[in-house]
Amino acid sequence: MSVHAFPASMRRLINELTKLPSVGEKSATRLAYFLVTRKAEESFSLADAIRDAREKTRYCKECFSLSESELCSICENPNRDFRVVCVVEKPADVMAVERSGGYRGLYHVLHGLWSPLRGIGPEKTKINELVARLERASSNEGSKVEEIVMATSTTVEGDATAQYIANSVKHLGIRISRIAQGIPKGGELEYADDLTLTHAMQGRRTL
Amino acid sequence: MSVHAFPASMRRLINELTKLPSVGEKSATRLAYFLVTRKAEESFSLADAIRDAREKTRYCKECFSLSESELCSICENPNRDFRVVCVVEKPADVMAVERSGGYRGLYHVLHGLWSPLRGIGPEKTKINELVARLERASSNEGSKVEEIVMATSTTVEGDATAQYIANSVKHLGIRISRIAQGIPKGGELEYADDLTLTHAMQGRRTL
Repeated sequence: MSVHAFPASMRRLINELTKLPSVGEKSATRLAYFLVTRKAEESFSLADAIRDAREKTRYCKECFSLSESELCSICENPNRDFRVVCVVEKPADVMAVERSGGYRGLYHVLHGLWSPLRGIGPEKTKINELVARLERASSNEGSKVEEIVMATSTTVEGDATAQYIANSVKHLGIRISRIAQGIPKGGELEYADDLTLTHAMQGRRTL
Repeated sequence: MSVHAFPASMRRLINELTKLPSVGEKSATRLAYFLVTRKAEESFSLADAIRDAREKTRYCKECFSLSESELCSICENPNRDFRVVCVVEKPADVMAVERSGGYRGLYHVLHGLWSPLRGIGPEKTKINELVARLERASSNEGSKVEEIVMATSTTVEGDATAQYIANSVKHLGIRISRIAQGIPKGGELEYADDLTLTHAMQGRRTL
């Protein structure tokens, strides 16, 4: 292999780096070279940050987003609107919605989507935990959830999961909404696919 | 900032990751998410590899390539041909030539090129060390260097450095060669620039 002339510790580092997503041997070699030649404290600081973050990070016991304590900073925040719960597939989606800035409610992270074709049943996601959470909330007048916003991807699996959850919590009388599908900001009609255009027409709003 | 909803240790990790070459905030976030959710031992193993490689790696005292001991594995290898020294800009270039497989001589890594326009004089590179090394070798009949191959890039700075070194070691009577310039393997004449084509014509060989 090409890395034969590198010292052993650098070969091991290159090998570890290629395990990262979308890092091939070329980028791993470039990164390793950078890591062994920059100031030692800077590389140690990255190594410590990796270890520290991995040791401290766990899932929020309420919403299953990333957290360093039992409850994440959003679930813990008394200023958030507990009456709305936004259901997403993965922690990164929480960050995406937070970044957009307009949402003030809580979240629930499913860590997967219902996908019968790939053998992933609802029990492999946090759907049961969501149902239990909503049931718990509905039995307590002071913490009632009034709406859940299904913000899973607008794919077959995302739609199926949203529908499955809607059926599972119907008995609680909670309003269930789905994020709007339509033409993305800046998108040209000419290049929109038929389904997107159909959804955009159906979801039209009065100006 | 967009990463506000992440726990503190993960924000610090993202910050450290963005200091890596060609890692922006988006890739840093994706990497950090991967690092805090995969198996803990796997992330610890990467952290250890970074620390270990940084601690152990130094420059070979003879050729200035990367090494874990005073002399690198190439300088130390009695089967290498000490009569030929290939001069390159950086350690990665050593790996590139080694990968190509045909070279059996030694190396000298300059760690930079002579670049008057950017205020980089020869003293900021390992050119003086190269001259001293060749003088040392020439005074000892059993380790005489017969040829140095200038394998710096075929850029203005690479050419200037090669010429500067050629002038500096002229008094030693060593043969000095330059890697060939021409059309790369698989390259089409139609798209070759004029200088490359001129070099390719001038360097033509009898079949």
